Amino acid sequence: MTNITLEDMEDFARGAAFLGTGGGGDPHSGKLFAETMMKQHGVPDLVDVDDVPDDANCFTIAMMGAPTVIVEKLFNGDDAELALSRLEKYLGVKADYILPIEVGGINSTLPMALAAKRGLPVIDADGMGRAFPELQMVTYNVYGVSIAPMAMANDHMDVAMFETGDAKSAEDMGRAVAMRMGLAVMLCSYPMTGAQLKKAAVRGTMSLALGIGRAIREGRKVGAPVEGLLGYLRTTQYYKHCAELFDGKVVDLVRETTRGFSIGRCAFEALDGSGRKMEVTFQNEHLVARDENGVRTIVPDLICMIDRETAEPVTTEGLKYGQRLKVIGVSAPETMRTPEALACFGPQAFGIDEPFRPIETLIDTNQD
Amino acid sequence: MTNITLEDMEDFARGAAFLGTGGGGDPHSGKLFAETMMKQHGVPDLVDVDDVPDDANCFTIAMMGAPTVIVEKLFNGDDAELALSRLEKYLGVKADYILPIEVGGINSTLPMALAAKRGLPVIDADGMGRAFPELQMVTYNVYGVSIAPMAMANDHMDVAMFETGDAKSAEDMGRAVAMRMGLAVMLCSYPMTGAQLKKAAVRGTMSLALGIGRAIREGRKVGAPVEGLLGYLRTTQYYKHCAELFDGKVVDLVRETTRGFSIGRCAFEALDGSGRKMEVTFQNEHLVARDENGVRTIVPDLICMIDRETAEPVTTEGLKYGQRLKVIGVSAPETMRTPEALACFGPQAFGIDEPFRPIETLIDTNQD
Repeated sequence: MTNITLEDMEDFARGAAFLGTGGGGDPHSGKLFAETMMKQHGVPDLVDVDDVPDDANCFTIAMMGAPTVIVEKLFNGDDAELALSRLEKYLGVKADYILPIEVGGINSTLPMALAAKRGLPVIDADGMGRAFPELQMVTYNVYGVSIAPMAMANDHMDVAMFETGDAKSAEDMGRAVAMRMGLAVMLCSYPMTGAQLKKAAVRGTMSLALGIGRAIREGRKVGAPVEGLLGYLRTTQYYKHCAELFDGKVVDLVRETTRGFSIGRCAFEALDGSGRKMEVTFQNEHLVARDENGVRTIVPDLICMIDRETAEPVTTEGLKYGQRLKVIGVSAPETMRTPEALACFGPQAFGIDEPFRPIETLIDTNQD
Repeated sequence: MTNITLEDMEDFARGAAFLGTGGGGDPHSGKLFAETMMKQHGVPDLVDVDDVPDDANCFTIAMMGAPTVIVEKLFNGDDAELALSRLEKYLGVKADYILPIEVGGINSTLPMALAAKRGLPVIDADGMGRAFPELQMVTYNVYGVSIAPMAMANDHMDVAMFETGDAKSAEDMGRAVAMRMGLAVMLCSYPMTGAQLKKAAVRGTMSLALGIGRAIREGRKVGAPVEGLLGYLRTTQYYKHCAELFDGKVVDLVRETTRGFSIGRCAFEALDGSGRKMEVTFQNEHLVARDENGVRTIVPDLICMIDRETAEPVTTEGLKYGQRLKVIGVSAPETMRTPEALACFGPQAFGIDEPFRPIETLIDTNQD
């Protein structure tokens, strides 16, 4: 299949920022790091899930921490490689493939960097098809892959390893240590075989991020980036139900960093003078979009904010009063809408009373 | 040398409670657990530091957590053995000896239990000759033994391993995880060789705890437990400077659980009608004893509270308004009074402005 090349990285990072649904961290610094590694060590092969042998050892890499810290971090990759090598040593096997746990935001580019540095292929898949705030909110966890053993390292070369049968415990312990380690740590978790990968992964999402970024760029050339984006999404297998939920300006913003998350809500007012309003709540990622008719899109379906002119994705930390944005709703992959998946990262997992309802039952997703 | 037998455990635990200097946790539940292990597996040999070969692998075991939780915990030893075996696996060596990191409180009995369960000898030494609240406050750390790798396990068989060059970082990361693991976790840290042990350990402190407990019991038989205690301490190498600092009742008590510690102060008024007062401050362990003439004893010298009739040690969580107690001051081992040692667990390490002054320069330690 087609690799993600150096020339693709701008598009790829833009698509990953879109899939971040407001969170996942700005992929800019991670993109620069991946580009450096790819220039030094070559472009890693991108491999389809079906082409990974059942007995292959597939290792994930991700950053855990605060986007505000991560943005200012200088990467050298020694910490990522340390986490990987400690997990290899613990398990007594070598990594054959690298893959992300989330394709949204900064954690999409990091596997590219580590794979390049190690000379390993990257798998075209992830465990969310978007971004989520907590480590247990992954299809790997939903479909039987153990989060542990899990290795964490920081740029002081401190290491922590965790063994537990419960992914939420790993999240709790891991976040507690990440806070002590400086809130920008590298994490190798959910080690899995190729056979497990085939059951548990959300497929094709690295290519998807590239496709999204490319569609926006090409749409800009003809002055229609939002139309380009929606048009592309409608050609995909999972993300085909999508719509512009709102076109407006930010009139209220409540955002606080609490319990290690960025939590809040953002209110929009329509630009067409109709007085229509929309409110989007978030915990790192956007969770629910409501207007006067009620819920328009709800997690795990994707709620993404983009600049209304350029379709450039905007993260929650980039939200500002008066900003003119479009809110886009997108269907999540079917594997993320099953009862077991919803138990893990559906509305209730975020303390929201409303049940999950697919975006295509809430709004007309066939017109812009 | 003479082992600590089942018949000795009552005395040993009492002596360890005294050396806890108000902290270290009530050794009662740990004592019951050690007795069970000793009945099932036999009494472990107690070995003098000089008899440990230079190339022997010496492993410590300790609990980390909140005394309030630990008191209610039922032990089975699987968690302690899990922490030990994970550290053995990580290092690729087997433990030859078990030793405590602190002889004060519950962490004195735990090495007896694990050594019995594993059929290993226990070393007659520790890293404090008393109790301290934090993991870096150990002579092992002061005299060049690395705290890491460090293994932690709880009774759900969750495991965390830490690598770091800095003992305070290990304390911070370890405590953060211990809070998530339920505040009663088993910890294997400071793995060391026999050669390192000889440089870094406080020697003879397991025997010392037994001697203290025995002296109190024998003193009770002749109606003079406090005199028996002081008389015994004066025969020892390190603890010979000691005195009754105060005889009074508790007239004020401020105690709060904050930052994972029990922090506060206790005020006493003399029973002799003289109106004399004493105040003792604590962070888990007693730190400073002051009267109208100023500091009478200061950390790392020992400040211990005992029942004025029976000389039974009282921990800070056992303090009550109106209680009639004696406050005893005792000199710390010389190895704990060096500039390097004071930098680690002297007054400044606890945020106290006064410099350390040895008890024998502050009061007359030659009379009761």
